[in-house]
Amino acid sequence: MSTRFPFPELDLLPPDIRDRIVAVQEKSGFVPNVFLALARRPDEFRAFFAYHDALMEKESGLTKAEREMIVVATSSANQCHYCVIAHGAILRIRARNPQIADQIAVNYRKADITPRQRAMLDFAMKVSTEAHRVSETDFAGVTAHGFSDDDIWDIAAIAAFFALSNRMANVTAMRPNDEFYLMGRLPK
Amino acid sequence: MSTRFPFPELDLLPPDIRDRIVAVQEKSGFVPNVFLALARRPDEFRAFFAYHDALMEKESGLTKAEREMIVVATSSANQCHYCVIAHGAILRIRARNPQIADQIAVNYRKADITPRQRAMLDFAMKVSTEAHRVSETDFAGVTAHGFSDDDIWDIAAIAAFFALSNRMANVTAMRPNDEFYLMGRLPK
Amino acid sequence: MSTRFPFPELDLLPPDIRDRIVAVQEKSGFVPNVFLALARRPDEFRAFFAYHDALMEKESGLTKAEREMIVVATSSANQCHYCVIAHGAILRIRARNPQIADQIAVNYRKADITPRQRAMLDFAMKVSTEAHRVSETDFAGVTAHGFSDDDIWDIAAIAAFFALSNRMANVTAMRPNDEFYLMGRLPK
Amino acid sequence: MSTRFPFPELDLLPPDIRDRIVAVQEKSGFVPNVFLALARRPDEFRAFFAYHDALMEKESGLTKAEREMIVVATSSANQCHYCVIAHGAILRIRARNPQIADQIAVNYRKADITPRQRAMLDFAMKVSTEAHRVSETDFAGVTAHGFSDDDIWDIAAIAAFFALSNRMANVTAMRPNDEFYLMGRLPK
Amino acid sequence: MSTRFPFPELDLLPPDIRDRIVAVQEKSGFVPNVFLALARRPDEFRAFFAYHDALMEKESGLTKAEREMIVVATSSANQCHYCVIAHGAILRIRARNPQIADQIAVNYRKADITPRQRAMLDFAMKVSTEAHRVSETDFAGVTAHGFSDDDIWDIAAIAAFFALSNRMANVTAMRPNDEFYLMGRLPK
Amino acid sequence: MSTRFPFPELDLLPPDIRDRIVAVQEKSGFVPNVFLALARRPDEFRAFFAYHDALMEKESGLTKAEREMIVVATSSANQCHYCVIAHGAILRIRARNPQIADQIAVNYRKADITPRQRAMLDFAMKVSTEAHRVSETDFAGVTAHGFSDDDIWDIAAIAAFFALSNRMANVTAMRPNDEFYLMGRLPK
Repeated sequence: MSTRFPFPELDLLPPDIRDRIVAVQEKSGFVPNVFLALARRPDEFRAFFAYHDALMEKESGLTKAEREMIVVATSSANQCHYCVIAHGAILRIRARNPQIADQIAVNYRKADITPRQRAMLDFAMKVSTEAHRVSETDFAGVTAHGFSDDDIWDIAAIAAFFALSNRMANVTAMRPNDEFYLMGRLPK
Repeated sequence: MSTRFPFPELDLLPPDIRDRIVAVQEKSGFVPNVFLALARRPDEFRAFFAYHDALMEKESGLTKAEREMIVVATSSANQCHYCVIAHGAILRIRARNPQIADQIAVNYRKADITPRQRAMLDFAMKVSTEAHRVSETDFAGVTAHGFSDDDIWDIAAIAAFFALSNRMANVTAMRPNDEFYLMGRLPK
Repeated sequence: MSTRFPFPELDLLPPDIRDRIVAVQEKSGFVPNVFLALARRPDEFRAFFAYHDALMEKESGLTKAEREMIVVATSSANQCHYCVIAHGAILRIRARNPQIADQIAVNYRKADITPRQRAMLDFAMKVSTEAHRVSETDFAGVTAHGFSDDDIWDIAAIAAFFALSNRMANVTAMRPNDEFYLMGRLPK
Repeated sequence: MSTRFPFPELDLLPPDIRDRIVAVQEKSGFVPNVFLALARRPDEFRAFFAYHDALMEKESGLTKAEREMIVVATSSANQCHYCVIAHGAILRIRARNPQIADQIAVNYRKADITPRQRAMLDFAMKVSTEAHRVSETDFAGVTAHGFSDDDIWDIAAIAAFFALSNRMANVTAMRPNDEFYLMGRLPK
Repeated sequence: MSTRFPFPELDLLPPDIRDRIVAVQEKSGFVPNVFLALARRPDEFRAFFAYHDALMEKESGLTKAEREMIVVATSSANQCHYCVIAHGAILRIRARNPQIADQIAVNYRKADITPRQRAMLDFAMKVSTEAHRVSETDFAGVTAHGFSDDDIWDIAAIAAFFALSNRMANVTAMRPNDEFYLMGRLPK
Repeated sequence: MSTRFPFPELDLLPPDIRDRIVAVQEKSGFVPNVFLALARRPDEFRAFFAYHDALMEKESGLTKAEREMIVVATSSANQCHYCVIAHGAILRIRARNPQIADQIAVNYRKADITPRQRAMLDFAMKVSTEAHRVSETDFAGVTAHGFSDDDIWDIAAIAAFFALSNRMANVTAMRPNDEFYLMGRLPK
């Protein structure tokens, strides 16, 4: 919790915000700090999670693990403490792979991923770091691996959404919850 | 309109999306292309404009013109064709100043703005280009000009939201409508 | 006008400098500030405009509009307030196109130009930003579109000349005249 | 193990190299891959580990955990898969802190470290990324926290040694052993 | 001599160009290649050398050696083969110092120069590499050492002129004459 | 000699260090400053020169001159005063070419070297400046010129070793001896 942007009092929040926070608490056993940090601004909170869910929870040509790979790779390029640690945990769980998040965070070019996933991350990183240079060559790099135009939109939109998310987390000094560090590292 | 991501048929859209598009058409006399481009994805459309309105339309310690300054400065750094042209037009109108958008787009350090606005844009540009380095020195640079913590959140959130927006516009090759180029350049 | 480098008194200038300034005033209806700013140094003024005219006014395999495209693209990369606004106006007039200058200034990769013009600007931007890496691959990129060696020299020389010009304008805080902002934006 | 640079046969190695490898196996329970990768070149192996030990094992004004912080921070900037994972494990153990390595790898500016350690890492990162700009201001930044000239040498030398190490690991595609990922994450 | 841009035949050149070339040959004992390379374009040749002489030969608050320091430092940043070698020779001669050019070319921050010269080169390098960020802080850095506004113009103009010159030399693959390498290295 | 890190007293050094220094003095006629600067730390001294000799003195598919080319090119990119001047001298001698070191230091892409040497330096520069991006494309660039895997290791290891060396020289403000500047510039 940043001293500049303290978490709001839970019982002063609008009911829908509070309900969402209670629901995630019940599901996860703790409240990820991103919910508390953004609750300071209810309208932005609602839009943020609506956007997040529209990209990360829906049906897609990308698996949920692949979507988290995009989050971890681009958030690491943006040096976002909260997103790398928290989404690294989610990636480990969704990929059922305790090493993949650390590998992608350090250097996705050396990670144990498929060539298709490598192409996906190359495109996502270009969107994240120099979208103004995205060209037909970049589109060809992903369509060659069978990604459809809708898949490409998903890749781009996830990279774009976390461009927003990483910036908010860095400015508000958002901290990942302690729970995330170990999550998904041990065999069940 | 990008050939890869064509605009959807208006009458196939969900009613709330169509209503919003009709409303903006009636208000502005044309439909800015961002509405048509994002309508391809109704859930993302709803979240995008909810987020946009939460930042750009509400009461704030920043004037609406100042908020558009942030959009133009950061979108220019991201070389976003749609956002610089369209929000440049809105900035000219809101600031009642036909030169300010071009000045900020080229080099905000040389624009005819107040020292307070200069500090606001310095902070916004840091969030846009290297949020991971935002430090107490940067916060001091804006608080020295009287910006409150909530104002700072607004500056950061607008820079972060257009980090998302610029990336989507660049990947989808979103074009500004012809109407924007001249808007706000002539005395009424 | 910069307070550090004020414009000289017109009637204290050498006659040839004054004559040139009077001539441009008569032709354009106003004196572009670059003439007044550089008049502080008569010898540099003479060399600067001789160089400018040798590149921009002569016969060439590049149209005058294309040469102004190079000026606008490279001056935007250098964030040169004076050159983007003033030469943007000249480009609009020479290309008889009210949108082209803004498009090229924001991101020339998305501008409505021909593939040949795109190749020309790719080469010019390489000269402007990393001439030490210009290689046979870059030459091949322009010769493939029919540019002759003399055309390539012209592209490079214009990019190089405005590398000088942009730096002088930025250091002296040269301001574009108000007239430039609207010039070429309205149908005649 | 890279297919280009396979590990040498253990029993073909010079006895001193083999002895060192056996010793580390006995102490750690496994052979970190850096020993096997560099054994391809016995003379370089000997010099590498002699240098390593001279910096990392001796008495110093920096604790062993602090020295590992420098390794993790600079290796992350260099995107070195092996060094971030392996030395992240060593850092967790030496600092008796399961979170510190991930925090420093993502963004050392947000890690839970002391102001003195922050100054140490600022200096180390400057040496790692732009040593040619190290100036009296940088020295003042560390001496203000009580670092002696010999401590500063240590900070610089560790950053410099891992500049070498990171490059070799990246070129040879050195993989961290599986054991490192979980090491130091669980309470003993 | 580049095969793409061969030197013109000397006796086909306009008389004033030929006269200048003959004069420099008589004075120096050889013709520096920049004269032959640019003679391909007589009007540009005349403007180039007029500009050069206006900056480098006139009376100034900067010594001729100091002006060459600016040339060598900025040309090295631009990796300009011709300018570093040829003007390095001139600097050695004008400064009567056989080491100064190599020192400035490698890293001017470590060269044996006065604090005033260091401030001059800091300003020149800022103009050369990011003129759009030149601010009052930069002006203060040079005025603190007694540089007048006219001196500052000279520093900026030399950095700007060689921004042009370096780009032309790199694109035309201009080679320094063999004579320059050893010039000024031996005591007379 | 840096005032922060003065050279140690020669007769207080361990005998093996002193012997090595005396030997180099006898062979070269002077003691290159790198020996005196690093003698402050005997263990690091021993490891440094053992590593250096393992790379630079052994048999290799690279000639000794080629190895010095790698040193000069990468040390110039790192703006290392000591290494560019001292190894520039050694390169001139080993290549029996008085111009080659200056050419490579300024811009190796324009130096008079073979295409094979150009490929070698391209690979070395990639290792030096962005080893985390080294890919199969880069390996193909050198294997196409007949470099073996062991040659490639040598190229990488030399670039990596001088990444270390350059950083130490820059932090300790190591000065090249006066003797190096002229060495190898005059015909014997």
